[in-house]
Amino acid sequence: MSDSTPPLLRRDEGGVATLTLNRPGSFNALSEEVLTALKEELGRLASDGSVRCVVLGAEGRAFCAGHDLKQMRANPDKAYYQELFARCGRVMQAIVELPVPVIARVQGIATAAGCQLVASCDLAVASRSARFAVSGINAGLFCSTPAVALSRNVSRKRAMEMLLTGEFIDAETACDWGLINRVADDDALDEAVGELTASLCAKSAVAVRTGKGMFQRQLQMPLDEAYAFAGEVMACNMMAEDAGEGIDAFIEKRAPEWRHR
Amino acid sequence: MSDSTPPLLRRDEGGVATLTLNRPGSFNALSEEVLTALKEELGRLASDGSVRCVVLGAEGRAFCAGHDLKQMRANPDKAYYQELFARCGRVMQAIVELPVPVIARVQGIATAAGCQLVASCDLAVASRSARFAVSGINAGLFCSTPAVALSRNVSRKRAMEMLLTGEFIDAETACDWGLINRVADDDALDEAVGELTASLCAKSAVAVRTGKGMFQRQLQMPLDEAYAFAGEVMACNMMAEDAGEGIDAFIEKRAPEWRHR
Amino acid sequence: MSDSTPPLLRRDEGGVATLTLNRPGSFNALSEEVLTALKEELGRLASDGSVRCVVLGAEGRAFCAGHDLKQMRANPDKAYYQELFARCGRVMQAIVELPVPVIARVQGIATAAGCQLVASCDLAVASRSARFAVSGINAGLFCSTPAVALSRNVSRKRAMEMLLTGEFIDAETACDWGLINRVADDDALDEAVGELTASLCAKSAVAVRTGKGMFQRQLQMPLDEAYAFAGEVMACNMMAEDAGEGIDAFIEKRAPEWRHR
Repeated sequence: MSDSTPPLLRRDEGGVATLTLNRPGSFNALSEEVLTALKEELGRLASDGSVRCVVLGAEGRAFCAGHDLKQMRANPDKAYYQELFARCGRVMQAIVELPVPVIARVQGIATAAGCQLVASCDLAVASRSARFAVSGINAGLFCSTPAVALSRNVSRKRAMEMLLTGEFIDAETACDWGLINRVADDDALDEAVGELTASLCAKSAVAVRTGKGMFQRQLQMPLDEAYAFAGEVMACNMMAEDAGEGIDAFIEKRAPEWRHR
Repeated sequence: MSDSTPPLLRRDEGGVATLTLNRPGSFNALSEEVLTALKEELGRLASDGSVRCVVLGAEGRAFCAGHDLKQMRANPDKAYYQELFARCGRVMQAIVELPVPVIARVQGIATAAGCQLVASCDLAVASRSARFAVSGINAGLFCSTPAVALSRNVSRKRAMEMLLTGEFIDAETACDWGLINRVADDDALDEAVGELTASLCAKSAVAVRTGKGMFQRQLQMPLDEAYAFAGEVMACNMMAEDAGEGIDAFIEKRAPEWRHR
Repeated sequence: MSDSTPPLLRRDEGGVATLTLNRPGSFNALSEEVLTALKEELGRLASDGSVRCVVLGAEGRAFCAGHDLKQMRANPDKAYYQELFARCGRVMQAIVELPVPVIARVQGIATAAGCQLVASCDLAVASRSARFAVSGINAGLFCSTPAVALSRNVSRKRAMEMLLTGEFIDAETACDWGLINRVADDDALDEAVGELTASLCAKSAVAVRTGKGMFQRQLQMPLDEAYAFAGEVMACNMMAEDAGEGIDAFIEKRAPEWRHR
């Protein structure tokens, strides 16, 4: 039963690229088809200078239910699974490495690798009815790759509890624990996402791109290396026209005119 | 004044091994005797395939008051202290490295190395009247080894405040800060622990054991290494019978029948 | 327009060295002059055995507004910026490496490198009206070096949100997120700081100094190395007279008499 509609939609407006997982019938499971589409689109976005930020959302009632379990069971082969998890890992790391920020727009359940997607984004906004779980353990499959992203977002005992029990947490709890940034009423989700994208689009593109990359890299460095790296990045940022204009505007108490919008 | 009762009790029921610190008269201080008993029992548990999870609790009003200060003062020798702290560190790391999850059941105060025990467990449930402190500083001895575990559970300014002031935090605060997972009314503590053990015992043993080990190891890796490691672990997990059965059961909307219970 | 008053004040009382940023007219911006004064004073403090802890505060309505943007614009040279950020990074690391704890006393806004100062301190107390932002992004300059300190205090999605939006968080939020330890009513700020300094000064100086340094270093180690290091540090701490006295006093239920006050 193949689906002739594209597995991933892209809409561009005002510098915001909105990607939408488009397999609502299968709860937007990360099938080979969806992973390939995500990887290709993230590749295009990586070299698209017109994009200021990315929103990652989904069609239907679920955000993403994780891997496509039927497809996995149809390929009972270790080499297949190694390749599948490697491919999924590359997609998650492509989000982290994308030059512009990625905002998860979570309108429904995000489970297993779906929860990993949320954790891998730079920012996340969820509707009040959204729920989060790493529930592979209920099917005999510990969410090992989701654990990598989750444990870099929430403290370890909380991550361990989610991974071992497979239980859902609600959006308020996810926000309290740091997995997402904001909770919106269900009918105000787009407004809340729009506030963030509007904020990002009002900034200098060069500053945003500088920051996204440096933030992720310095996290993995010891303090002295992180400072050496960040200082160098910031000196380069100062040499950009936008920094000069931005600082002048700040001093002159006027709005800046970015070159790189 | 020696005590002829065993310093550590073990009771096994339905796959749950419950260890109980049994020196209530000395607030379950981690004397040489208690550390040795813990190390030996953790060694036995590491190779005991029948165990699904471990509960670590204590007799009496205190959970654990840390090191045995009288015993330490009776051995004023640097080599003795080096060996003592090394031994204690090995016990804490044996909890982290145990193939099955360890749940702290905290019914009273957990101070210094007692607080470290809680921090070293994978999960922790405390009664509402339990309190936590790393109070060595009050006796002129900064809780250096407890700091290792504590600072991997709670954020650094909070850890530093506890370590420098030696002050107690209550169970609600410990839960809010991520040191423990759940707070229960004093008379509902066993029920709350039982909910967690029942949840773990309902899972596939191979999945739980897979997850416990991979989680702790990937925490110390950079992102790309962590993904490579987790992907390989997950591919192996997929080849286990339980994963096939669990996924089939999920697809067929029935309860799974685990091989490895 | 130079200012003949000293850019940094120091007052010593009862073992507490209080440093006060003294450029209220420029919101205590970290000009070359202020950074140099901070670096020199931190150097003196590093070898001053009479100091038990340091309070870092500020004159006027702002705590610190970050770098001196006018001075930066007057030196549009990459080598200048490299040197400036390197110097600032050394000041921040000098706080982390100082042998005694540093408490930020935050009475007003702390933005950009001002927020970094707060994040770099071991402890922080803020008045209820204080606010925190890493707002360089609004001027086209991503707060890269502040991100290093901030992301080691608050979870990554929260840090990223602050860095990308440049928006303020209030003192309660900063406390909830772990950036500061305590919030005080504006007229009770000194009392709240005084509680912490009194607590630190009541401790053994050797224990406090032992702890400050070991805590910061072990954070960057894998678990087994951290335990080996902490165990060795703690064995040395046990050989100090104060540990013997402190433990004896604890056992004898009396107040300890520290040698090193």
